[in-house]
Amino acid sequence: MTPQELAAMLMAARKPAPTIAEMAADMEELGASLPMPEGVVETPRSLGGIDGLWFAPEGSDARQGCILYLHGGGYGIGSARSHRALTALIAQVCAMPVWSIDYTLSTSRPFPAAIEDALAAFEALVSAGYAPGSIFVIGDSAGGGAAAAMALLALDRGVPAPGGLVLFSPWLDLTFSGASHRECGPRDPVVCVHSMTMMRESYLRGADPASRHASPALADLRGLPPVLIQVGSEELLLSDSLTFAERAGIDRVEVTLEVWPDMIHVFQAYFPHLEQAHHALARVVGWIAARIA
Amino acid sequence: MTPQELAAMLMAARKPAPTIAEMAADMEELGASLPMPEGVVETPRSLGGIDGLWFAPEGSDARQGCILYLHGGGYGIGSARSHRALTALIAQVCAMPVWSIDYTLSTSRPFPAAIEDALAAFEALVSAGYAPGSIFVIGDSAGGGAAAAMALLALDRGVPAPGGLVLFSPWLDLTFSGASHRECGPRDPVVCVHSMTMMRESYLRGADPASRHASPALADLRGLPPVLIQVGSEELLLSDSLTFAERAGIDRVEVTLEVWPDMIHVFQAYFPHLEQAHHALARVVGWIAARIA
Repeated sequence: MTPQELAAMLMAARKPAPTIAEMAADMEELGASLPMPEGVVETPRSLGGIDGLWFAPEGSDARQGCILYLHGGGYGIGSARSHRALTALIAQVCAMPVWSIDYTLSTSRPFPAAIEDALAAFEALVSAGYAPGSIFVIGDSAGGGAAAAMALLALDRGVPAPGGLVLFSPWLDLTFSGASHRECGPRDPVVCVHSMTMMRESYLRGADPASRHASPALADLRGLPPVLIQVGSEELLLSDSLTFAERAGIDRVEVTLEVWPDMIHVFQAYFPHLEQAHHALARVVGWIAARIA
Repeated sequence: MTPQELAAMLMAARKPAPTIAEMAADMEELGASLPMPEGVVETPRSLGGIDGLWFAPEGSDARQGCILYLHGGGYGIGSARSHRALTALIAQVCAMPVWSIDYTLSTSRPFPAAIEDALAAFEALVSAGYAPGSIFVIGDSAGGGAAAAMALLALDRGVPAPGGLVLFSPWLDLTFSGASHRECGPRDPVVCVHSMTMMRESYLRGADPASRHASPALADLRGLPPVLIQVGSEELLLSDSLTFAERAGIDRVEVTLEVWPDMIHVFQAYFPHLEQAHHALARVVGWIAARIA
């Protein structure tokens, strides 16, 4: 399938004004349709009061660190289960265990519950024996935003930083201030302003969308660990990555940003259909390997 | 030397309001002070009416392509000679010949003479037998802007595209519209608004600074080949890279952007003092190698 065919298929399947419950069901369905990679053992695991799924690659455990995964879904939908194929694949290619957590969704409790859970999960991994710098936080979409917000929260509280953040198509600007929010909406087959606005209201419940932990792209980012961002050209949320990268650069954060032409929101999740997903994950492997040495 | 010590040294050595002639002399002096790498043969070479220096790595010539190098200096100063140490190092690490050209400086003829020369040089390499896709255009500062502008000019005239563009701290927005132009000026030890404005006036002589070939960051970039950008956090011109990358992303150009914390304008040129310069060039090697296969 070409990227264009995949985008057209997704665009055609899109419901005009879905409810959050409908979107949640669609995300679980998509997740269940993806093949699980070989050689990864999945186990439910709770640490520090946070539930999640633990994906352990079989065999060699040469690398010392682990990955904390924060799934996407606008802070309102998605789960460790809906994202299990992608997270298992990450465990396989990175040859590292991945703990994908079920942070509190906005339908249950609003901002900042999700990022408090993410930080609690990170601290639980440290308590379990992982050196902070050997933990890499990966998140997609709202999970990418949560990863950045969690790292800021850690900074604000004097918690040692993770080794790095890997953000797939992150949602980092809840004010929708970028050029792509105006220019890329019509061609984005996954994300639309309608659903993102609904997600934002459910998450913030009146909190300021421009605040530090809601929109890391607009925050003072001094002290953040290195960041790798992968984003597609077809995304409403493309500018979130650029706005964040500019701010991070000015604030002396090490940033690598990759814009993948013709790729859609969290294209890594479509790995059975897109060879670019595998190329992108190979870049993640190299980026983490260079920082965990 | 730490990056901070280097920056402090450069800041202390900066003249308050240098003339273009003084800046030109300083750039030649800096260039002459840098050590030439081993194993690279330097030869004057003219092609298609364009003069330059040809840097050929000794021994194996496994790779098919070549590099066209466009030096920096605000379009008004610098030369193939002032940049010979960096370009020879690039030839060595990339194991590819580098042709560094003496395009027309603004003190001789203004915009768009420089980019017309760059395109003529590219076409001369094609005439000499290099497949367009095997030619990579690397430029620093104004040379990075010239590389992007040359690629746009090629597009506009139906000339086949080079294999990719590698931009070191490129000057891509002659309107100075970005956040770094306001925020990073005071800490930039190399570039200041005074000298850049003088350079811009000398180059444009009344032409619109927002026009397509003057400020590629503001242009329609559809059809550009892949781009790798490396920029430092200490740069007045940091935002040029981000503004360009956002536009390029929306326009479906493949972009990899690296922001290097604590690094100054064209930090690659300070390779005897900064290990990061070598790390950055290693990334260039990998990026080109992946695209020339």
